[in-house]
Amino acid sequence: MPDPDRDPAPETVPETVADLSETDLLARFVPRLPRGRATELGPGDDAAVVEVPTGRVVVTADVLVEDRHFRRAWSTGEDVGRRAAAQNLADVAAMGARPTALVVTLVMPADLEVAWVVGLADGLAAASAPHDVGVVGGDLSSGERIAVSVTAFGELDGVAPVTRSGARPGDVVAVAGTLGRSAAGLAVLLDGTLDASEHDVVGTYLRPDPPLTAGPEAARAGATAMLDVSDGLVRDAGRIAVASGCGLELSTSLLAPDVEALTVTAEELGLDPVDWVLTGGEDHGLLATFPADRPLPPSFRRIGAVVAGAGVRVDGVTPTAEGWDHFRA
Amino acid sequence: MPDPDRDPAPETVPETVADLSETDLLARFVPRLPRGRATELGPGDDAAVVEVPTGRVVVTADVLVEDRHFRRAWSTGEDVGRRAAAQNLADVAAMGARPTALVVTLVMPADLEVAWVVGLADGLAAASAPHDVGVVGGDLSSGERIAVSVTAFGELDGVAPVTRSGARPGDVVAVAGTLGRSAAGLAVLLDGTLDASEHDVVGTYLRPDPPLTAGPEAARAGATAMLDVSDGLVRDAGRIAVASGCGLELSTSLLAPDVEALTVTAEELGLDPVDWVLTGGEDHGLLATFPADRPLPPSFRRIGAVVAGAGVRVDGVTPTAEGWDHFRA
Repeated sequence: MPDPDRDPAPETVPETVADLSETDLLARFVPRLPRGRATELGPGDDAAVVEVPTGRVVVTADVLVEDRHFRRAWSTGEDVGRRAAAQNLADVAAMGARPTALVVTLVMPADLEVAWVVGLADGLAAASAPHDVGVVGGDLSSGERIAVSVTAFGELDGVAPVTRSGARPGDVVAVAGTLGRSAAGLAVLLDGTLDASEHDVVGTYLRPDPPLTAGPEAARAGATAMLDVSDGLVRDAGRIAVASGCGLELSTSLLAPDVEALTVTAEELGLDPVDWVLTGGEDHGLLATFPADRPLPPSFRRIGAVVAGAGVRVDGVTPTAEGWDHFRA
Repeated sequence: MPDPDRDPAPETVPETVADLSETDLLARFVPRLPRGRATELGPGDDAAVVEVPTGRVVVTADVLVEDRHFRRAWSTGEDVGRRAAAQNLADVAAMGARPTALVVTLVMPADLEVAWVVGLADGLAAASAPHDVGVVGGDLSSGERIAVSVTAFGELDGVAPVTRSGARPGDVVAVAGTLGRSAAGLAVLLDGTLDASEHDVVGTYLRPDPPLTAGPEAARAGATAMLDVSDGLVRDAGRIAVASGCGLELSTSLLAPDVEALTVTAEELGLDPVDWVLTGGEDHGLLATFPADRPLPPSFRRIGAVVAGAGVRVDGVTPTAEGWDHFRA
C-alpha cells in the first residue's frame, strides 16, 4: 500500500501519451467522436466509407501547428479540436456545401498529457456533432510538436459549387458571421494585461463558430463567389477580386456594427478596431457576392459592391494592411 | 554586377522556404501535381470537388513525421512524397477501392530547401499519376519538423467495401505484393556498412510500390477480409483475426519465396530473413482472405488458412515478435 508521505499520489502525475500504447490511446479517443449520418463505415479499418448521394464530394484540408497556430498556454485540447474542425467545416461551407465528415491526423509529443488528447477528441466532437458531421478516421503519430491536420468533406445536395471566380461588376458584396472578433481576442491574449474573461472576443479566437449553414443558403440564393475569411477581410476580398477579374469596393459605414462591437476592447488596448475588422482573420465568416437584383439570404449583410477594375478598395482607398503570411519574416 | 571573388555565387546558397511567400511556394508546388480524371475542381479554392459516381467515397489518412517515419539523410523529398502517397493509396486499395484523389498538408521548417518541397510534389505525382489519382488540395504551414499528412479517396465502383471482419474458418489466407523487403531495406540503411545501391530492398523501403490494382481485383473475387500490411504480417494478420473472430494459420513453407528473396541481404547482415517477412511492415502489400472454393485472383498467392479459434500461428506456433508500436519505449 503506498505511503502518502513518501510516494506521490498517482493522481498528481498526469498520464501522458507515452504511458499508453497506440491501441490504448485510440480506445480513449475514438469512442468520443460523433458518427454522423453520412458515415457508412467509421474508424477502425484501413479506411472509412462516407455516403455521397449526389455524386460529388467537396474536400478541404488544413493543419494547425503548436506555437504557430495555437499555444498550449492559451488553448486547451478541446479548444484546438473545435478550431481545427471549425475552420475546415467553414471551408466546406464556403463552397456552398453541407459538411458531412472529417478525418484527423494528430502528431504529438510523447510527454503530452492524455487529457489533452481526450480534450481534442471532445473539441472535434463539439464542433462536428451539432452539424451531424462524423469524425470517420485518421492517424496518430509521435513528434516533437503538436500538429493537427483535418480533412473535411461536404455534400452539395445538387447545387453547383460556389468558387471564388464568379463575381461580376454590379454584384453585392456581403458577409455572414463576425469580422475581427478573433483578431481582437488574440490581441487581448497577446497584451496580457486585461482580464480575458471580461472580453468574450477571446472565446471567438479560441473557439471560432463559423456560420456553416450560411454556405448552402448562399449557394441556393445564387451567390456568384464565396470564401471564408481566414486571413482577413481585405486580403480574402482580394482573392475574390483576382479570381473573378474585377474589383471589390468595401464601405466602413456598412462595417460600422462590426467595428462598434469591438470598441470597448480596442479602447482598453489603445488599438483601432477598424484594423481588426479589415485585416483580422480566423472568425471564418463567409464573404460572398450576390446578384444585386435578388434579396440577400437572411444570414448575410451587405458590406460593399463588385466593380469593374481590380483589387480591393475601402471607402475608395486601396488599403495598405494586407493580412499576414506564414513564411515571411 | 556581383564580384565572384567577394560574393558567393547565388547557386551555392540553396533557396529555402523562408525565401518565398506562401503564394510563391504554392506556385512552385501546385503545377507539378496531377489532376486525375475524378477531379471536378482542383487546388486554388476553399475546397476541391471530386466526382463520386457510385454514391460513396472511401477515405483514409496517414501522417509521416521527420525522424519518426523518415530521415532526411536517407530520403529525398521525392521519396517522402512517393511513400506518403503510396501508403495511403494502399489503404484505399485494401478496402477494395480504386484510388481517385488525395489531399496533402505539409508542415515544414523555414530553413527547408525549396528543392525538397518541389521534390515532394514530384513524389506525390509519381505515385499518383500512373493510377489516374489527382492531388486536389491541401495546406502548407511552417513548423519545426517536417510532417506530411495525406488523406486519400477511393471509388468502390459498385462493389461492397472489404473490411477486416469477414474472414471465416476455411477461407484461404493470401497476399499480393512483397513481404519484408522494406524492413530489409531499412536494416541495410541502419547497418550503414553495406553499399545500399547493391541492395534493391532499400528502394522498397524508400519508395514502396503497393499492388494497388490487386485491391479491387480481390473485392471482385469475393475477398472476405483485407488490409494492407503496414505493421508486419503477423501483427496485421492478428487484426483480421480479432476483427473476424477467428484464427489465422500461416505457413513458412508458403512464404519461402519471400524469405529466399531476402537471404543474400540477410546473410551479409547476419540477420534472419524470416523475421523481416513475418514482422516487417511498410511494403504495403495486401493481405486478404478468400473463400476456398473459388480461384485466387492472379495477384494473390496463398500463404495460409483461416481456422476456428483466435490469434495468429506460424507453422502451428504463436509467434512472439509482434511488430512495433509508436509510443511504447
